[in-house]
Amino acid sequence: MADKLLHDDFMLPADKAMRDVARGLYNGIKDLPLISPHGHTDPSWFALNHNFPDPAQLIVVPDHYVFRMLASQGVTLESVGVPTVDGSPTETDSRKIWQIFADNYYLLRATPSRIWLDHSFQNLFGLTETLNGDNAQAQYDHIAACLQKDEFRPRQLFERFNLEVIATTESALDNLPHHHAIRDSGWSGRVISTYRPDSVVDPDFEGFADHIASLGQLTGCDVESWHGYLDAHRQRRAHFKSLGTTATDHGHPSAVTANLDPIAAAELYQLVLGGGANAEQREMFRGQMLTEMARMSIEDGLVMQLHPGSMRNHNKAVFDRFGRDKGFDIPTETNYVTALKPLLDAVGDSRDLTVILFTLDETAYSRELAPLAGAYPCLKLGPAWWFYDSYEGMKRYRELVTETAGFYNTVGFNDDTRAFPSIPARHDVARRVDCAYLAELVATHRLNLNEAEEVATDLAYGLAKAAYKL
Amino acid sequence: MADKLLHDDFMLPADKAMRDVARGLYNGIKDLPLISPHGHTDPSWFALNHNFPDPAQLIVVPDHYVFRMLASQGVTLESVGVPTVDGSPTETDSRKIWQIFADNYYLLRATPSRIWLDHSFQNLFGLTETLNGDNAQAQYDHIAACLQKDEFRPRQLFERFNLEVIATTESALDNLPHHHAIRDSGWSGRVISTYRPDSVVDPDFEGFADHIASLGQLTGCDVESWHGYLDAHRQRRAHFKSLGTTATDHGHPSAVTANLDPIAAAELYQLVLGGGANAEQREMFRGQMLTEMARMSIEDGLVMQLHPGSMRNHNKAVFDRFGRDKGFDIPTETNYVTALKPLLDAVGDSRDLTVILFTLDETAYSRELAPLAGAYPCLKLGPAWWFYDSYEGMKRYRELVTETAGFYNTVGFNDDTRAFPSIPARHDVARRVDCAYLAELVATHRLNLNEAEEVATDLAYGLAKAAYKL
Amino acid sequence: MADKLLHDDFMLPADKAMRDVARGLYNGIKDLPLISPHGHTDPSWFALNHNFPDPAQLIVVPDHYVFRMLASQGVTLESVGVPTVDGSPTETDSRKIWQIFADNYYLLRATPSRIWLDHSFQNLFGLTETLNGDNAQAQYDHIAACLQKDEFRPRQLFERFNLEVIATTESALDNLPHHHAIRDSGWSGRVISTYRPDSVVDPDFEGFADHIASLGQLTGCDVESWHGYLDAHRQRRAHFKSLGTTATDHGHPSAVTANLDPIAAAELYQLVLGGGANAEQREMFRGQMLTEMARMSIEDGLVMQLHPGSMRNHNKAVFDRFGRDKGFDIPTETNYVTALKPLLDAVGDSRDLTVILFTLDETAYSRELAPLAGAYPCLKLGPAWWFYDSYEGMKRYRELVTETAGFYNTVGFNDDTRAFPSIPARHDVARRVDCAYLAELVATHRLNLNEAEEVATDLAYGLAKAAYKL
Repeated sequence: MADKLLHDDFMLPADKAMRDVARGLYNGIKDLPLISPHGHTDPSWFALNHNFPDPAQLIVVPDHYVFRMLASQGVTLESVGVPTVDGSPTETDSRKIWQIFADNYYLLRATPSRIWLDHSFQNLFGLTETLNGDNAQAQYDHIAACLQKDEFRPRQLFERFNLEVIATTESALDNLPHHHAIRDSGWSGRVISTYRPDSVVDPDFEGFADHIASLGQLTGCDVESWHGYLDAHRQRRAHFKSLGTTATDHGHPSAVTANLDPIAAAELYQLVLGGGANAEQREMFRGQMLTEMARMSIEDGLVMQLHPGSMRNHNKAVFDRFGRDKGFDIPTETNYVTALKPLLDAVGDSRDLTVILFTLDETAYSRELAPLAGAYPCLKLGPAWWFYDSYEGMKRYRELVTETAGFYNTVGFNDDTRAFPSIPARHDVARRVDCAYLAELVATHRLNLNEAEEVATDLAYGLAKAAYKL
Repeated sequence: MADKLLHDDFMLPADKAMRDVARGLYNGIKDLPLISPHGHTDPSWFALNHNFPDPAQLIVVPDHYVFRMLASQGVTLESVGVPTVDGSPTETDSRKIWQIFADNYYLLRATPSRIWLDHSFQNLFGLTETLNGDNAQAQYDHIAACLQKDEFRPRQLFERFNLEVIATTESALDNLPHHHAIRDSGWSGRVISTYRPDSVVDPDFEGFADHIASLGQLTGCDVESWHGYLDAHRQRRAHFKSLGTTATDHGHPSAVTANLDPIAAAELYQLVLGGGANAEQREMFRGQMLTEMARMSIEDGLVMQLHPGSMRNHNKAVFDRFGRDKGFDIPTETNYVTALKPLLDAVGDSRDLTVILFTLDETAYSRELAPLAGAYPCLKLGPAWWFYDSYEGMKRYRELVTETAGFYNTVGFNDDTRAFPSIPARHDVARRVDCAYLAELVATHRLNLNEAEEVATDLAYGLAKAAYKL
Repeated sequence: MADKLLHDDFMLPADKAMRDVARGLYNGIKDLPLISPHGHTDPSWFALNHNFPDPAQLIVVPDHYVFRMLASQGVTLESVGVPTVDGSPTETDSRKIWQIFADNYYLLRATPSRIWLDHSFQNLFGLTETLNGDNAQAQYDHIAACLQKDEFRPRQLFERFNLEVIATTESALDNLPHHHAIRDSGWSGRVISTYRPDSVVDPDFEGFADHIASLGQLTGCDVESWHGYLDAHRQRRAHFKSLGTTATDHGHPSAVTANLDPIAAAELYQLVLGGGANAEQREMFRGQMLTEMARMSIEDGLVMQLHPGSMRNHNKAVFDRFGRDKGFDIPTETNYVTALKPLLDAVGDSRDLTVILFTLDETAYSRELAPLAGAYPCLKLGPAWWFYDSYEGMKRYRELVTETAGFYNTVGFNDDTRAFPSIPARHDVARRVDCAYLAELVATHRLNLNEAEEVATDLAYGLAKAAYKL
């Protein structure tokens, strides 16, 4: 172990017989190309193909998984260089930031961040010693030197990572210049976008009215009218689709859906647009838009993803000073059974619709999500998400979901990340945990080995490709 | 493994030392007679003892566990012969239905249905190869031939299955002709009914008022009055009891109970009967009736079972076309602590009452159900139910419940099934999972082996017999 | 096994390789001193150092974990000598009580009570045979004889148990005479109190108004005014602190907090004091007081503990006859995300505040508590509590919490007990379960062995000492 950060068998079962099965399954799938159908990498990386900046700016400053853990033990966000909303200065010395990170690296023990970091330290940068306060500057030097090399540029890493396709996520108002540029560049890497209309369907989004106005300008549609507004969505979806998009994504506070008659929907839209809607009406509008999006998906074939249940920006002081996505999005209890019924009553039996459901509330897996996905033709379950994108999280997901929904109502793995260097690590972890789970099924004679081999390939590659139409 | 569908050690622990313990425990209890105190087999089978029809009609068409999984992947219920409410035709060619089932058999991988099916394919019909599209018709032929034989008739299977007693479930309005016929036939098999009054206690049940009228005609009681209505229940319970019934069963949307004073209860009954009760009042009435049923149980000794928390017929289109029990009953969050308090305040300390609680909401196991059952003398916990009648489901049940409620506030296993051929499989699975759990306790020195042997027998046989007074 | 009640390896993993790792970790920490920062032992024991009474009075009568299990199977509380509120007689023959306990000892199989009892029977009293109806009187004789000896007196046990410090819990109105006496006695044992103000911050506490009046008399503060009332708290906290107290404890029905402006808070206090507050206002007042307590904690440094979510005294008949703490406190669903927001908005980013959160609702671990504690600097997670103070409970706690919050946002182990003889058993169980968990991390290569050794020490000793400032 002295010369490796991660053991070859990490995350495989400890039991010898089971580990042998798991290893066999894993060896059969570990080199499959990566399908990354949902994530948040920056498309400009692939369009411009500039070198990444220094280690701290690549690994610490943008990763709220990491710096919120430091914050939880009293480290200030200023001291690790998180930029402020008002531009007031925070730490800019990347070596200082890296030192704080290394001094506190032990806080990440047994978290997925630690595994992902060690995985890329080892496999991407060739490091062999656990980061700590003493070796911090030497490791900084080593990584910084790597990042200057051509082979560490985004497109080169894309190819080295064996990515078959990666999806980024853009606002409905984005004109996708980088995706255009990538296509025009002649580079063969497949980088597509995902249609994310939150800012123009959620009345609680900051600047909602302005975003609607922009939507009108962008499309030439009469967004003052309900029908014009819906047409504007159709146009934007078509634009995204023309650049390869196969899916939409919806980050709602709850899974509430609605199915108003067209007149009531039009009236609600006017109310919302005028700013006069109360909290319940705004929730109803978001819910109505999910059903409208589902209807459009039946028309244009885009796969729909629903990510509900996060209370965003829980820490008001941090939000005011540092803005969104600073590690204080906290999960809440999420109901699906009554919430999804209006949408399902409207379109739930369609064979031309795919709705992929995610959750931050594990209690819904076995109680609600697996029974729903195990019956409705349009529903599929997204992988273990966010805090559950982890060894135990994925293990529980399989244990709670499989017996009711089977494997074929799930959609493989999403890395859901903005941390590009961690992508191979995340897929590798998911593949190992799935193989460990399958090995336990085989070792307890709940699944035949030949079937497990087939399922392993499906979980690592086939299901994502099929579900997202890639 | 080539000549068996299921390994001899299936579901026993993979670890050698633990498996040896589990095997020892399992061998000690595997041949105990089956106690089936709660289920939904058709009593006419045992009364008439006709041969079962063909494989598709026995195994696919009536099993919503199976066909809802096919539906979840786009197979239509028409194509697998599920009958419609209006009698419009669906597939009647059992060979075609069987082929679709076989083509999609892989969807059931790692689900309990797959294990139950393989178990009966192997042990009942002697098949040795996993069902698939290629062998579908040959396996159909084989099973069809078996079903024609005398030894595959219901009474012969009952005896072959080593059933000591089986309980069916009938409406309060049922006159139990088949149970009469079985008793009069001189056959020694013990087939008893369970008193299920949902249709005459739930104002939301389709045709509630008509059912109440039938209750009056059947009993001669004045069901226009609260006291006459209660007397009618007493009569029906006595009738069931005279044919061997030892238990009642209550399938309510929630666990809400109420304990109104007699005048308020009588007024509520009039309101409900007149159709003027709102949703809250109808819920209150159901809750009041649970407390009334508990009081009657103290009088007549019938064990009371409460099965709350399913949102029935979630898919409106399927319900309208195909009716109830089509795989779209979806669990919902279920509260017990405040919901049961009125009933428990009224009769919770009675030593003459047994109330068996089930749940579809696993979060209640350790938080609410085990603490309640671990304290109140009248409460016991039913086994892992429905979607949780599975390896992982039963494992979590034991892990979540035992440390707080012990073993002796649980009631052994219920198969809860209408799929008669699967009954030995279901009991066998439960016995194996319990032995695996006990083996882990022994191997981690949390329970002595001699105690585990005693507990294994109790879980497989003794507790069900005692709790249901069989 | 014939000569021991508990195997040397109890609760360590069954797998040989993993057990070796676990044993190594355990041997490294098993002899560390016990830190008991939260519990309910009686300080008079240590002040007076009298011998304990007989076995039944020490082990059965005061332990609601034990007698509620007997009650759940129909044993009456009268028959095991639980005292009544009105003083009406219950069983006083300790040998009879002990016999009932022994006859029903099998009910505790696989519960933590059984392990704790066997642990103290073996290690404290030297017994080697499982208690049962036959050996009941002999074991009674043996234990009774022990209890007469000097070495079984409270201070001697304190030393034998290797307790470094024990915290008791006293009402805000307690003058801490026993803690004074202990300090004045010259004995070196460190016994400190915890400030528990429930009776003077919870308007629903029996005798609330009288308790407020007492608070005024005790402090000389004008408790008729909001500011005087807050000053009275400050005085009492200072008094506790002068005798070594480092923490406060708050047993609220929910985790609701509030942060009213001072005028509104003062008005609410008047309303509450006058008895005119409705349920919502009383809840708001409790919530406001949590925020006030947090502010005082920033001033005086006392660590704050929040124990929400128990519905106390669920069984009305038992409460009326036997009073509080009789095994019928039932957990309820507990929300933290919205409930804690007012307090966190007010003081959540303070580096001078520690709030330790407990839960009886496991669903909150991964969904709410770990994400909150993994981000907010003031929040830490208390150990698995009450019904979860068990093998499976602690295992789930680590599995659900660690990947998001890490180890360093948890606070080690609390025994939380009034059962003094069980304290070594409880700490030993926690140490074993933590080592088993760490061994699995090591064996699946998710944590290096040298890191696991460091973490094991932190979990067993360091974290409790640091978090509670001991």
